[in-house]
Amino acid sequence: MDAETLRAENEALKAELAAMKGVKGQVSPLAPKVIAEAQPVAGVTLASIAAGVRYKGRDDVMLARLEPGTAMAGVFTRSSTRSAPVLACEASLARHAKNGPDGKPIGIIVNSGNSNAFTGAAGEESVRAVTRGVASLLGTEPESVYMASTGVIGERLPHDRIEAALEALVAGLAPDCWLASAKAIMTTDTFPKLSSASARIDGVPVTISGFTKGSGMIAPDMATMLGFVFTDAKIEQAALQELLSRETEGSFNAITVDGDTSTSDSVLFAATGMAEHALISDSGDARLRGFRLAFRAVMRDLAQQIIRDGEGATKFIEVQVNGAESDESAKVVALSIANSPLVKTAFAGEDPNWGRIVMAVGKSGQPADRDALTIYFGDVLVAEKGWVAARYREEDGAAYMKGEELTVTVDMGIGTGSARVWTCDLTHRYIAINADYRS
Amino acid sequence: MDAETLRAENEALKAELAAMKGVKGQVSPLAPKVIAEAQPVAGVTLASIAAGVRYKGRDDVMLARLEPGTAMAGVFTRSSTRSAPVLACEASLARHAKNGPDGKPIGIIVNSGNSNAFTGAAGEESVRAVTRGVASLLGTEPESVYMASTGVIGERLPHDRIEAALEALVAGLAPDCWLASAKAIMTTDTFPKLSSASARIDGVPVTISGFTKGSGMIAPDMATMLGFVFTDAKIEQAALQELLSRETEGSFNAITVDGDTSTSDSVLFAATGMAEHALISDSGDARLRGFRLAFRAVMRDLAQQIIRDGEGATKFIEVQVNGAESDESAKVVALSIANSPLVKTAFAGEDPNWGRIVMAVGKSGQPADRDALTIYFGDVLVAEKGWVAARYREEDGAAYMKGEELTVTVDMGIGTGSARVWTCDLTHRYIAINADYRS
Repeated sequence: MDAETLRAENEALKAELAAMKGVKGQVSPLAPKVIAEAQPVAGVTLASIAAGVRYKGRDDVMLARLEPGTAMAGVFTRSSTRSAPVLACEASLARHAKNGPDGKPIGIIVNSGNSNAFTGAAGEESVRAVTRGVASLLGTEPESVYMASTGVIGERLPHDRIEAALEALVAGLAPDCWLASAKAIMTTDTFPKLSSASARIDGVPVTISGFTKGSGMIAPDMATMLGFVFTDAKIEQAALQELLSRETEGSFNAITVDGDTSTSDSVLFAATGMAEHALISDSGDARLRGFRLAFRAVMRDLAQQIIRDGEGATKFIEVQVNGAESDESAKVVALSIANSPLVKTAFAGEDPNWGRIVMAVGKSGQPADRDALTIYFGDVLVAEKGWVAARYREEDGAAYMKGEELTVTVDMGIGTGSARVWTCDLTHRYIAINADYRS
Repeated sequence: MDAETLRAENEALKAELAAMKGVKGQVSPLAPKVIAEAQPVAGVTLASIAAGVRYKGRDDVMLARLEPGTAMAGVFTRSSTRSAPVLACEASLARHAKNGPDGKPIGIIVNSGNSNAFTGAAGEESVRAVTRGVASLLGTEPESVYMASTGVIGERLPHDRIEAALEALVAGLAPDCWLASAKAIMTTDTFPKLSSASARIDGVPVTISGFTKGSGMIAPDMATMLGFVFTDAKIEQAALQELLSRETEGSFNAITVDGDTSTSDSVLFAATGMAEHALISDSGDARLRGFRLAFRAVMRDLAQQIIRDGEGATKFIEVQVNGAESDESAKVVALSIANSPLVKTAFAGEDPNWGRIVMAVGKSGQPADRDALTIYFGDVLVAEKGWVAARYREEDGAAYMKGEELTVTVDMGIGTGSARVWTCDLTHRYIAINADYRS
């Protein structure tokens, strides 16, 4: 073989390897073409800084200051090994829920690079040190400072580095630091994730803006999911919590990359109450109709951006389950499909392997009738009445699988329950990212 | 670059790609160095044949004939989309449990290449056609012929090909066809899996022999788990079923490759009663002590061989959970660890990433106390009291991970429940095998 041929073969082999392993730092192929910005929210100022917690040459700490009177809501990982910051947030939230706003500002401080999880008593000390430092600079109580940390697990948080950066951080607080803040909380994320929407409450315009991070769902080292959403609407704490809990089900709780759950997952929702409408105290209030839709859009958008940054993802997959015994049952089936390694590798291989969907429905443990099951890939009817559909042609399924955005619809045919979840495919890059992560 | 250098680089690139994708037909690196044979069992004759169900040039149908008076036990997939053969086996077993042996022989017929799952009413027709054919040649009832099928899902079983081979198959029945039978039921398996043990009941020697197949746990296309175990002991059907159900928990139900469950998983246990000891009717009978241990050894050995053939596996991993609230709780925790893609990719990367073990314990939903948790890799104490162990050195963990046979021990520190499961790592080859399978 001459040098020319060898060189060509060489290039082809390198390209194949790069396609399998990916290129470090490469932005996800599913990333939005344009990175969304977020609109400022009255009562919210933000800042970010490079404190050197773990990374060099990038911001890794973010601070939000919320005006006195802000109502807070939160949802957290149910992991029994959840981190010190999560435990502290839960305690603060319970206190706010009980006592209401105390006329002082609220802080949210987030670091990347170290999750402060499974760090024993030292973990709580770190949270105390940082929240005290922030509280003293913002003129509030340490319990009014919410902390979130993601990154490596089991290593002591070098909280002195964060403390040393606090003065500069507070000095930098400004209403328009959204993109920089979204970047500061990134770990294995390949793009910052922001979303914004506006609505009217009683005719008064309000804004909802937020950002999130996460790319495995989730890797306990570095890929925990965190979300922070802010609005200037004036909503009582209990109603705000109801809104958040409800919308989390169809957004952050409806996505899965690998079925793994972090020790640090947290979503906070803050309402500063700066908008000049009457206080809303009921989450079902008709005046919230537009607001609820806008909030849902932001939550879904943020959650879906995590899937678009799923480790190694090349396909964005929506799994819709209808006709189940109940909505809860539909969601179990949908997650059984979305978490199945065999389903996810079939998508990676662009293989319309509907047998694996049947398997995943069957293993879900949910009520199902084989002969009532209907399966679609997009609009392509694949299987019905307990068998492959008479008019299904493998070429149609294969052609559909070539797309980047795919939908699997399963009709269980036994009830009216439905659910929708989002996931991505399982590729060589997932293995490359996770088998070699810490080394 | 000259041709020589290019050629060398090409070779290196090809080797790296081959290591990631594997070589088709390559035997698992975890396979036993010597393929086990199985001892003949009085009352059991076996035969295999190339019927051309799907594969060319290899046996793909296996028949076992069991002497009149044989007691049968079985455990089956709990999938709600289980296959026609599984449904028929369950019905036959219920009938045998109710009526007992009818003085006629029992048959077990197994084909590879087609699972006859999700094939609608045609699936049941195929089972009827084959079991009738076998029954007429063996001189028994169709309901006394147990059928098991694995292979592609959703395609009609070409049962006429099996029927055409039955006469030759029955003519070939012999006491020593164990290895050929174990080979005939293989699908994506890279080696045949047999095991044998002997024991004494009331001083009378008895034999237990069996074979199994499975390599994903499991792929609905081709990697369903099937197991067939035979003994000449004389045990009543109800007691035999109790023995099988109990030992399945610690063997076939304690292994996981990818957490996926087949539509066809089946394990049958047949006792021909040819051994000349008195009939045993109680599974707790003291005379069964040695037999139970031997049976347990065969069941574990067979189950572990499936893990040793796990798709893409390079590490054999034992997960031992102690100190849990209950045995059931321990098993949920152990499976949460063994099924976690993040844990499995860490093993693939020889990364002593104990944070992922903490994560998997936390996400299991089982009672746990972070500060009571102790984690070992082999004999290396990694974490205790809610943090990394004081004397743990990353080098020790990393050195341990280089091994091919690994043990993770988790002590929950809150009770006396324990469980042990086996799994393998998650590698590029798993992706290569499953992303490209049908194409």
